This record gives sequence, structure tokens and C-alpha cells, in this order.
Amino acid sequence: MRHIAITAGGTAERIDGIRKLTNVSTGKLGWECLKAVLQFLKNNSQPPTTIHYILTETAYREELQSEDTDFVRFHKVTDTQSVYNTIDSLTKSNNIDFFIHSMAISDFTFDYAIGKKKLAEQIWKLSKSKDYNLQQIEELLDNPTVQFEETSKISSKNDIFISLKQTPKVIALIKKNNPTTCLIGFKLLRNVSEQELQAQAIHLTHTNHCDYVFANELSTISNIENHTGILVHKNKIIARPIGKQQIAKTIVEQIIKP
Amino acid sequence: MRHIAITAGGTAERIDGIRKLTNVSTGKLGWECLKAVLQFLKNNSQPPTTIHYILTETAYREELQSEDTDFVRFHKVTDTQSVYNTIDSLTKSNNIDFFIHSMAISDFTFDYAIGKKKLAEQIWKLSKSKDYNLQQIEELLDNPTVQFEETSKISSKNDIFISLKQTPKVIALIKKNNPTTCLIGFKLLRNVSEQELQAQAIHLTHTNHCDYVFANELSTISNIENHTGILVHKNKIIARPIGKQQIAKTIVEQIIKP
Repeated sequence: MRHIAITAGGTAERIDGIRKLTNVSTGKLGWECLKAVLQFLKNNSQPPTTIHYILTETAYREELQSEDTDFVRFHKVTDTQSVYNTIDSLTKSNNIDFFIHSMAISDFTFDYAIGKKKLAEQIWKLSKSKDYNLQQIEELLDNPTVQFEETSKISSKNDIFISLKQTPKVIALIKKNNPTTCLIGFKLLRNVSEQELQAQAIHLTHTNHCDYVFANELSTISNIENHTGILVHKNKIIARPIGKQQIAKTIVEQIIKP
Repeated sequence: MRHIAITAGGTAERIDGIRKLTNVSTGKLGWECLKAVLQFLKNNSQPPTTIHYILTETAYREELQSEDTDFVRFHKVTDTQSVYNTIDSLTKSNNIDFFIHSMAISDFTFDYAIGKKKLAEQIWKLSKSKDYNLQQIEELLDNPTVQFEETSKISSKNDIFISLKQTPKVIALIKKNNPTTCLIGFKLLRNVSEQELQAQAIHLTHTNHCDYVFANELSTISNIENHTGILVHKNKIIARPIGKQQIAKTIVEQIIKP
């Protein structure tokens, strides 16, 4: 059995049960990748294949055609930790042949919230203490004593700080668990030239062992028909597809050889 | 012409063009309120009515029946400031008879982001300066000198602080511009008793001049059929409807008398 994994949508990190940290990803490009894979399997003689579709709560999805439902297993996720756990388990229990990792995963998760005035008071108090030093400030910022309680909604009566800590790198898991996977990474940047986009895409192929990277700039992604970017492989731009459908088709045809 | 306004969905405050601060609101209760108003207008002889439906980008919506489209004007909004501007303009140019304000509006908007270590260094430097005092810390926290540039995506290489400032209170606008509007406010709380829910709902009727408040607790809202809460009017609970459809119907029948 051949296994293809696709991730789609944007993660949501809970702040206080009501508020969330999310991102602009809609999951539409991921869905186009799923459709492109299904179409490719129909048009080309292929070994039996299972597609693992990992999607967030708000990710775009359509009804599958009934003949396709047997091939696709849906895995629902919410925040970065749940994506991490799902992919860890999936890549440990299956040898994934192709991994199209289009999900926009938060680099940060909620640490704590604190009123600005409360934090200022604690800094003031600390700075008057004996043996006061820079490291103590860093420790205070990591773990102040007055925070909002985790179980309640954060009060809106004062300006606040939200402390965000880094999340584990999900993409690093994939090749770690399955060194032979063909991995397609995605990179979204803002206000950069194509040259810089290419440089960062190449950087990603090295740091995260991606075989291909599709890199795009924020202003070019909102429209289904006009969404564009560069597909990078072995340090070179190998395609500049236009439109989400064409991007998905290009990726799938590049990686899965007929 | 009679005017009814309904707000629905959750606002999104942009952090850096890619990341957003959002909330759990889906807009489904707002949509049920729209359907309940349309149904009420069909069943009861009423003066000619225009419905202003103010919704966020991610708010749930269905296709309207063709006979209803003439009655409804859609106003799309994104962040709290855009809701403020839209409602200010709407309530200045129309006398709104009933205002069902179900949108979950962020109390906070993005101020700045800063690496934790960078902030610690600035605090350290400040604390060594002449005439150092508490107010200076507060000023530094309001406006540190090293922040991420507004035009780029925030780097994910360090733990960060996000400073959030309070948004203008949209609900206060409604009666200010239209003192005769019948205003229905909504309150969502977490981990509180019904007694506390009622107390806060009553508080809201006074502080924001709501004629009615529908108050609910987070754990009771996720399911369409089981969503419940209390409808408060003149300091008393007048209904405990169950299910989003029933909540909408109860509100509409209470406020618009046949």
C-alpha cells in the first residue's frame, strides 16, 4: 500500500477558551492538492493508495465524490500540539511515500497573559531587590507572578501583554520518522522579492530536508485564480504555476511520476 | 421604513498580515436571528422593513430565499475598527428600531510585538538610568524602541510578547447615535454560575443601555441544538430558550410585538 499525506488549513492556538491566535490560511490550496492527487490516481495506473488528509477545524472542504471516499482518511486537528501528535503517530505507523505539507502551523502558542500595569509593578519591585540583574528580568518575563487565571476569560479592563512561546517544529518530524518520504514544504512570506523568496525556499529545503518547496508571497495568494508562487527543487525554480488548481496539479505531477 | 440591524460572527484583529487574533464565534446564532426576523415578517403584518446584516469574513451564511433578498442589506466587516465605523455610519444615517448585536467583538487589538530578550535588555538599560521610576517602566512597556517592523512577518526565532490595547466600545455607539433603538446585547462568559451570568447580564443592561441581554456560558454554546442561556430584561430572567433556532425566535418575538 502506498501512502500520501496532505495537511491543510491554519492552526488555532487557544488564548483563553474564547480568544484564539489563528492565521490567514483557508485550506483551499490543500483541498486542491487532494483533488489533484485523486485525479492523478484516476488518470494514471498506480499502486493501491491511501491518502491521509490532516485538516484544521476551519479548513475549507467539499463533499468527496462517492468513488473517492474509500481512498481518503480524514484526521482533524486544532492547535500545533495536536498536529504534532497526529503526524508523529501517522508517520510512526505508516511509511508515507509523499507528504504535501501545506498547513499553516503557528510558530507560537499561548504562554500567559498579564495586565501591563501589573507587569510594570513587578518589574519595579524586582529592580529594587538585592542582587538585581538582567537574568532576573528575563526570568520574570518568563514567569511573572500575577497572571490571568487559566480557567476564566481574560478581563478586558486593561491593556495586556500576551506572552507567546515557540511551538515544536512539526515539519522536522516527517523525515525524522520516515527518512524516505518525498516531502513538499510550503513557505509564505510578506513583502519580499522573488529572489528573497527563492533564497528562503532553498534554505527550507536544507533546514527541514524538503525535496520540494512551494514559496509564495502574501499579496499573491488571496485569489483562487491568481494565486501564484515558485516551486523550488534542488536549489532551482522549476515552475511558476498560476491559480490554486494549477499549483496543486504542478506539485502532484512533479512528485508522483506516472 | 422600519430598520432592523443584526451583527454576526467574530472579528479578526491582524497581528502581522499573516497571524490574527480571533475568537470562537461562528456567526450561526446571528444567522438564526436573521431567519427568525424574516419568518416573523412573513407571519405578522408589519410595516415595510429593511434588515441590515453586519457580518465578519468568516461568519456562517447561507443562501437567502429569493423573496427575502430585497429586505436584507449585507455589510461586511473585518476588525473591531471596521465594525465601529460601519455601525457609526449606519446608525447616523438610519434610525434603527431594533438592534440585535450578537457579534463577538474583540476587546483588544494589536499594538506591537517584541522579542522577550529584547524587552528584557531595554528594561535593564532603563533601570540603570538616572531618575528611574515606575512610570518610566510603564512608558517603556507602552512603547519600547525595538519592535518588529510592521511590514514584515514576525520572526519565529524567539519567544515574543504581543502587546494588546483596548478597542473602542462598539455597543456604546448604538444608543448614543439612536437613543430610541431597542438594543439586544449578548454576553459570553466562561466557568460562571447562572447567578453570576445573570448579575453580569444585568450589569450590561445598565452600562451599555441594553433593553435585553442574552447571556451564555462557553460550555453550553457549541452545539446547535443544545445551545442555551438566559434572556434578561428589566433585571429579570424572562426566558431560558434551548437551541440556536429557539434562542433566535424567543429574542425576535420578545422584541418585535406582532
